[in-house]
Amino acid sequence: METNVWLIGAGPGDPELLTLRAVKALRRAEVVLMDDLVNPEVLEHCPQARVIRVGKRGGCRSTPQDFIQRLMLRYARQGRRVARLKGGDPCIFGRGGEEAEWLSRHGVACEVVSGITAGLAAATGSGIPLTLRGAARGVTLVTAHTEDGSEPAWEALARSGTTLVVYMGVARLEAVSAALLAGGLPGDTAVAMIERASLADQRECRSTLAAMAADARAFGLKSPAILVIGAVAACRMFGIAPQSVEASAPARKQA
Amino acid sequence: METNVWLIGAGPGDPELLTLRAVKALRRAEVVLMDDLVNPEVLEHCPQARVIRVGKRGGCRSTPQDFIQRLMLRYARQGRRVARLKGGDPCIFGRGGEEAEWLSRHGVACEVVSGITAGLAAATGSGIPLTLRGAARGVTLVTAHTEDGSEPAWEALARSGTTLVVYMGVARLEAVSAALLAGGLPGDTAVAMIERASLADQRECRSTLAAMAADARAFGLKSPAILVIGAVAACRMFGIAPQSVEASAPARKQA
Repeated sequence: METNVWLIGAGPGDPELLTLRAVKALRRAEVVLMDDLVNPEVLEHCPQARVIRVGKRGGCRSTPQDFIQRLMLRYARQGRRVARLKGGDPCIFGRGGEEAEWLSRHGVACEVVSGITAGLAAATGSGIPLTLRGAARGVTLVTAHTEDGSEPAWEALARSGTTLVVYMGVARLEAVSAALLAGGLPGDTAVAMIERASLADQRECRSTLAAMAADARAFGLKSPAILVIGAVAACRMFGIAPQSVEASAPARKQA
Repeated sequence: METNVWLIGAGPGDPELLTLRAVKALRRAEVVLMDDLVNPEVLEHCPQARVIRVGKRGGCRSTPQDFIQRLMLRYARQGRRVARLKGGDPCIFGRGGEEAEWLSRHGVACEVVSGITAGLAAATGSGIPLTLRGAARGVTLVTAHTEDGSEPAWEALARSGTTLVVYMGVARLEAVSAALLAGGLPGDTAVAMIERASLADQRECRSTLAAMAADARAFGLKSPAILVIGAVAACRMFGIAPQSVEASAPARKQA
């Protein structure tokens, strides 16, 4: 599909985790709309482009989703080549699907360029093999936070046999812990809480399901962070990770 | 961490979905051990390297895991720069964790370079937004096939409220369908079965949980393929996907 509008996953933070396809699109872009979870270093690939920050954090109020979509549409209809840069993967908690569908309904074709999602990169960077045979049957990516306040099916997730990777969970550690304990996961289930996924200063706090909220406070865990919950969260596939800091000392097991 | 051994995720197939970090490692590699799910086109980044194919399919018997690990270790101990290329992401059903841990135990540090995993790229390429708000609370990646013959907790997965992305499921379509129906998912739950993720000839068969095995036969679905199961599997975020082929015509809904 020939297109001049790209929804691009910029990956978890490390600018080297950008894909070649993303770089190619950035090099062609005339206008770049950038979320503020995106590392600005990736802009080195589009010095020619006008960059518009449409982030949802920071000092100013968030840019409404509707406004961002209309901006993309306006530039696309002007015949400009538009790159929309999102953190991680556009379709993993990134609203990429909504934006692509909305553009399509308004007659604008776009291409979605997959990116490395933060949850998977965070675990790898901390030496945690998410789907290790014998320890996990798979991996589930969920958000703890939603706009409508609804909850994931924590009890089913507790019984799923998969490693849980929780996005946007820092403000809801007590609730996540309580729900999974109530769902039947043991209190000593391993937990890793990981800040600044894939960056040189990635930090991790290893804990347990019962102790995670208290350990995160002691550690000073800051949002955005990724929670990894399940047996594999005790693994260290690289031996001792050089930048790991431990808030508590639960029993360890090596993979 | 300074290292000369890399376990690299080569992504789902499209050579442009390689990361910059993977390219950088390949350019430095002296020896490349390549799985056969990896697109050989990525070798353009390492013309200087000796390439050893250690695939698990094809005419010859599979290369035993133990042999591959010892080969990596031998080259690493000779001081060679070794790149191990795996399809998708090394830590999503890729044994990357086992290999990294084994090398670490033998005194060799390695770096794991995350890649785009096939399940996520397959869905995006078919216009399926895996975590669409209102339709899915998240996404679960599981394998239908394991060496020990054990089954995922299908009933819990059926009740998880997450989109299910099933790897290595083509030979077990009837069993997956039956288990999820028994777990309480309705027969008209949308299913997409996707071959050759991210490649120009990616093919998809849209179906339902009740009809998926029969539809896959009619479609001629070949392994490896990705199954996407859940409401979002009926979505087409790009409008009508140009290469979609439909084996059946269940009720459609637009996201």
